[in-house]
Amino acid sequence: MFEFTITAQDGRARNGRFATPHGRLQTPVFAPVGTQATVKTLTPEHLKGINASLVLSNTYHLYLRPGDELIREMGGLHNFMQWPNPMLTDSGGFQVFSLSKTRKIDEDGVNFKSHIDGSIHRFTPERSIQIQNNLGADIIMAFDECADPNDHAYIKQAMERTHRWAERSLAAHTRPDEQALFGIVQGGVSPELRAVSAGFIASLPFPGIAIGGLSVGETKDEMYNTLDVVTPLLPENKPRYLMGVGTPEDLIHGVARGVDIFDCVLPTRLARHHSAFAPEGRLNLMNATFARDSRPIDESCDCYTCQTFTRAYIRHLIVAREFLAATLISIHNLRALIRLMEEMRGLIASGKLTENIPRLLERWQGNAARKNTSLERDFD
Amino acid sequence: MFEFTITAQDGRARNGRFATPHGRLQTPVFAPVGTQATVKTLTPEHLKGINASLVLSNTYHLYLRPGDELIREMGGLHNFMQWPNPMLTDSGGFQVFSLSKTRKIDEDGVNFKSHIDGSIHRFTPERSIQIQNNLGADIIMAFDECADPNDHAYIKQAMERTHRWAERSLAAHTRPDEQALFGIVQGGVSPELRAVSAGFIASLPFPGIAIGGLSVGETKDEMYNTLDVVTPLLPENKPRYLMGVGTPEDLIHGVARGVDIFDCVLPTRLARHHSAFAPEGRLNLMNATFARDSRPIDESCDCYTCQTFTRAYIRHLIVAREFLAATLISIHNLRALIRLMEEMRGLIASGKLTENIPRLLERWQGNAARKNTSLERDFD
Repeated sequence: MFEFTITAQDGRARNGRFATPHGRLQTPVFAPVGTQATVKTLTPEHLKGINASLVLSNTYHLYLRPGDELIREMGGLHNFMQWPNPMLTDSGGFQVFSLSKTRKIDEDGVNFKSHIDGSIHRFTPERSIQIQNNLGADIIMAFDECADPNDHAYIKQAMERTHRWAERSLAAHTRPDEQALFGIVQGGVSPELRAVSAGFIASLPFPGIAIGGLSVGETKDEMYNTLDVVTPLLPENKPRYLMGVGTPEDLIHGVARGVDIFDCVLPTRLARHHSAFAPEGRLNLMNATFARDSRPIDESCDCYTCQTFTRAYIRHLIVAREFLAATLISIHNLRALIRLMEEMRGLIASGKLTENIPRLLERWQGNAARKNTSLERDFD
Repeated sequence: MFEFTITAQDGRARNGRFATPHGRLQTPVFAPVGTQATVKTLTPEHLKGINASLVLSNTYHLYLRPGDELIREMGGLHNFMQWPNPMLTDSGGFQVFSLSKTRKIDEDGVNFKSHIDGSIHRFTPERSIQIQNNLGADIIMAFDECADPNDHAYIKQAMERTHRWAERSLAAHTRPDEQALFGIVQGGVSPELRAVSAGFIASLPFPGIAIGGLSVGETKDEMYNTLDVVTPLLPENKPRYLMGVGTPEDLIHGVARGVDIFDCVLPTRLARHHSAFAPEGRLNLMNATFARDSRPIDESCDCYTCQTFTRAYIRHLIVAREFLAATLISIHNLRALIRLMEEMRGLIASGKLTENIPRLLERWQGNAARKNTSLERDFD
């Protein structure tokens, strides 16, 4: 289990197969986010229809509601939400730092206040892993400490604690044959700290390695430079997961730098704000321009939405405040990023990714993010 | 076109086939309501999955938003919302009387205020038919005047005007080969007026006849007694449509009295309020009782929701305020009523409906409505 096989390489980019108890993942892969055990507004059938393979869910949210014990009793997360393919849960660390206004960190763990009812809770590495063992995802994450990327002293301290917590997470994991526990590289945007962290996490027996603490307010260059430092220091034969990333251009830059797994709320959150990935750039479909537009969102897209509905109809649904609008745009936006990953896998297989990076970036230019998403937004 | 063939009879109940430009309807049939050119929270694929055949949409709403001219330009309602099977539009009369606070009726038509932006509009029989000709549904309705069922003098006046408007609606219809225009019987709960109205509407060359002005606050007995007066006076060889009805018990009583077509917002509106048709009666799935209930809503149901998800999961979605809850319950509630109609068609075909009416009523007792829906609620 959890064998990672590289099937093709092109520069630093690689195609891989990652074996999990719920099937083999083809990488590079983009994972839709289903924060509360549902990718908002979509059924599992919709997700299969867009060829989604890996789905992420959030430990912090599921622990608070409906509770990890309840999900365990219901047969685990796959069974509860009826997603038969691979799943990933994060450790809850990021949400504790981003969602809970009152939190107190000590060497052992973190006290935090529920964003739902203000009740007090405590996460430690052991507790986070126990919760994730109850949830039962195929890929689970070590408990880490996220820090403000601009506070160098704190970044170093948080990184060192993250390393100690990584070892405690490994020791606490009770289902290593069923769940792949990934370690997390931290270190802000400091090349020195990132190199130290990559080296340390790579030295531990994790079956996969994540890069955390990015897409939290740093510049695009800082993110890509950090990847340039980190990925060459990671073992070739383990999958690499860039957490909470990304935008279309980040996926392209990430794959080119040897990242295998991505997740982001962007496509579904944009959809709920009427915004769609389109050939001419990101479109706000509420705009009156689209009232009589009989084209699909993207003529070249093979998703149910583009194969079936006009922009005019979707615009009507938005203006009439019909829920179906968010469903239809979510299907398209997710499919657009999954298609981009499929396209990059094809280019890697034929050894043509590197030469096509400029073309891919140009095509997605109009859909690029103006800035990186902020720390508060990494859940859907 | 619009041939209605009776294929089986059992007492006053009958099975029929109604030929429309978008396929043959098997009757008795229950039509989900898609007020704004969408059955709320569902895709057309969901509707096909529950074997929906006829879908209703509301002329009043579509005229105001996005506009009937726009829908005509987009290829008509079927094309706009991508529903390839039969559709029905009402005349807008009912909504003018129930939704618009300021209205002024004269012999020629009605002035009313938009519930969206307060703008002033006018419907006449000619205008309603013109709008419905633009929308292009297979079945369209004559413009009628709805009246308070407890005001006998007004009921008579409104019925007489409805008769004059029925003749004007017929004369205004420009697409009789593509759209079946149904006349509407009015007359409140007065057996005398209903008999007069049934006789008059039956004398006009409508390919189908609707019974209006019911499920607007009268008692169940008054509704069923009215059907007992009206249906025997209607021609056998034309389909009969009981507008805005109903609850499961109303469908059973209606079919037994020879009604062929029904529509109601109940199943989808209940779904958005977390309420599901279940064997033990109507369930509010937000209730904590269901937190660990690993059964489907209805073990015997063949819908996607019941074949896939537990009550515990749906309860979680409701508590977590996830849109998917309304989608999943809507699928089940609609399928439950469509299955009831399929079951009744089977019983009619084998001549066993009459003897099974008590059993059907008993089974649905726990899901019966406490009272009839009020005038304000006949759109979804």
